[in-house]
Amino acid sequence: MPEPVENISIVKVSNTEHRQVDDVIAKEAPLTIFVNDTELVTLLCSPENLNDLAVGFLFSEGVISSMDDIARISVNESKGIVWVTLKEGVPFSEEDFHRGRAVTSGCAKGQTFSHLTDKLDLPAIDSQVRFSVDTLYQLIKQMQHLSTIFEQTGCVHVAALFGDAEVLVCREDIGRHNAVDKVSGHSLIHNIDCSNTAMLVSGRLSSEMVLKAARRQIPILISRSAPTSSALKIADEAGMTLIGFARGHRMNIYSHPDRVVFNGNNPE
Amino acid sequence: MPEPVENISIVKVSNTEHRQVDDVIAKEAPLTIFVNDTELVTLLCSPENLNDLAVGFLFSEGVISSMDDIARISVNESKGIVWVTLKEGVPFSEEDFHRGRAVTSGCAKGQTFSHLTDKLDLPAIDSQVRFSVDTLYQLIKQMQHLSTIFEQTGCVHVAALFGDAEVLVCREDIGRHNAVDKVSGHSLIHNIDCSNTAMLVSGRLSSEMVLKAARRQIPILISRSAPTSSALKIADEAGMTLIGFARGHRMNIYSHPDRVVFNGNNPE
Repeated sequence: MPEPVENISIVKVSNTEHRQVDDVIAKEAPLTIFVNDTELVTLLCSPENLNDLAVGFLFSEGVISSMDDIARISVNESKGIVWVTLKEGVPFSEEDFHRGRAVTSGCAKGQTFSHLTDKLDLPAIDSQVRFSVDTLYQLIKQMQHLSTIFEQTGCVHVAALFGDAEVLVCREDIGRHNAVDKVSGHSLIHNIDCSNTAMLVSGRLSSEMVLKAARRQIPILISRSAPTSSALKIADEAGMTLIGFARGHRMNIYSHPDRVVFNGNNPE
Repeated sequence: MPEPVENISIVKVSNTEHRQVDDVIAKEAPLTIFVNDTELVTLLCSPENLNDLAVGFLFSEGVISSMDDIARISVNESKGIVWVTLKEGVPFSEEDFHRGRAVTSGCAKGQTFSHLTDKLDLPAIDSQVRFSVDTLYQLIKQMQHLSTIFEQTGCVHVAALFGDAEVLVCREDIGRHNAVDKVSGHSLIHNIDCSNTAMLVSGRLSSEMVLKAARRQIPILISRSAPTSSALKIADEAGMTLIGFARGHRMNIYSHPDRVVFNGNNPE
């Protein structure tokens, strides 16, 4: 597997002084996904866990609905290519994919976001899982130590899936969407039931981040950053607990706060 | 114009206490772009300066090469729709756009990024502009005060174009690519010569950010965050000065440091 970082030489400036020093930056490399021998898309990503990324991306985009749809998957890591062969009978149209993607970014073709989950045909998340506020603080603390590329480069996003206080999988990528797709792909490949998990991400919570988690039926999504209005609407409709500004012993709960347990005194 | 923020009610948690409070989040809304009556793409964005965004996006994607290609542009801000009519003779193919976009993200169809600027047919930036390191520190300081939505929501990116120490345009968006496209679009609409400017952005410098600035021939791109390996390669080949980790009186210069002037003692 190619290294996810690269050594370079830079000019480091401090006040009026400058000097040439060695530094490390995050690698950004193309991953081209072929489906049934059709070149579908090229993603720009951190070149590791390409298998996870391809599966997660195809799941997020609705090309596959589970690993059962895939007959064969083959990765050339050094060239950055993944070939996916779907099982016979699994419908696939390159044209629908491109048209779908052009509007998926918008999801609503110029309309408002009301009843978006209906339009997207997302089943509601009905998980009964509860996390105590103390457990959530533990997860937030653990997240700080999980990123290895970030510590070296300051240039990647992290997504991690937790079952109670245990890390099930953690993935890094230069793209915040890719980091979530890698976690989603890993969970599909390893058949992880997401209904009792919480996902923590480093990046802002836009609608696409929430949609990716909702498709995977993840009941709790937490970020140290802020959500957008559409992210909140989708989370609310999908039945997801959306938490932002999770830092230290503070957080904001934006939707479905009932999954967070306080000592005998819970929000409704 | 719709407001770029929305008032909501959240559960604010601090240690083991929680209370319902009013809060403000960044609006995320769809912008659908029609070109010659064909629905081309729907972007998710902060719903302001939609004109700038549509023009900048079409320019970044190569659909137009200047304002001269546009016969008419019409915006419905409340519905989030922009209609662009190209002048007769300006080539346009929806299919090419979608295929192009699918690989534009990758730019190289699974190949490496060497000679990417050749492939992208980007003219080299030959601007002779110089900025003193003190002026750059001033711009970095100014950037901190330019964002209005960010101060309220913590959820947007900012891009600003500076001519020497003067702000030419500043735009905010929930998407860091959109913020740059809005600045680029504004500069095209108002016929701003970018060859003597520096652009400052709040977000990480991935290849697409550098490509957008390079297409607009912006010679200096500065971020408080880090670049990726591909961003650096493209900047280097395009002749762009790429600066990261610009905070307070510190910065890292990654390429073409000769545009930064120190007192009599310059990097080569």
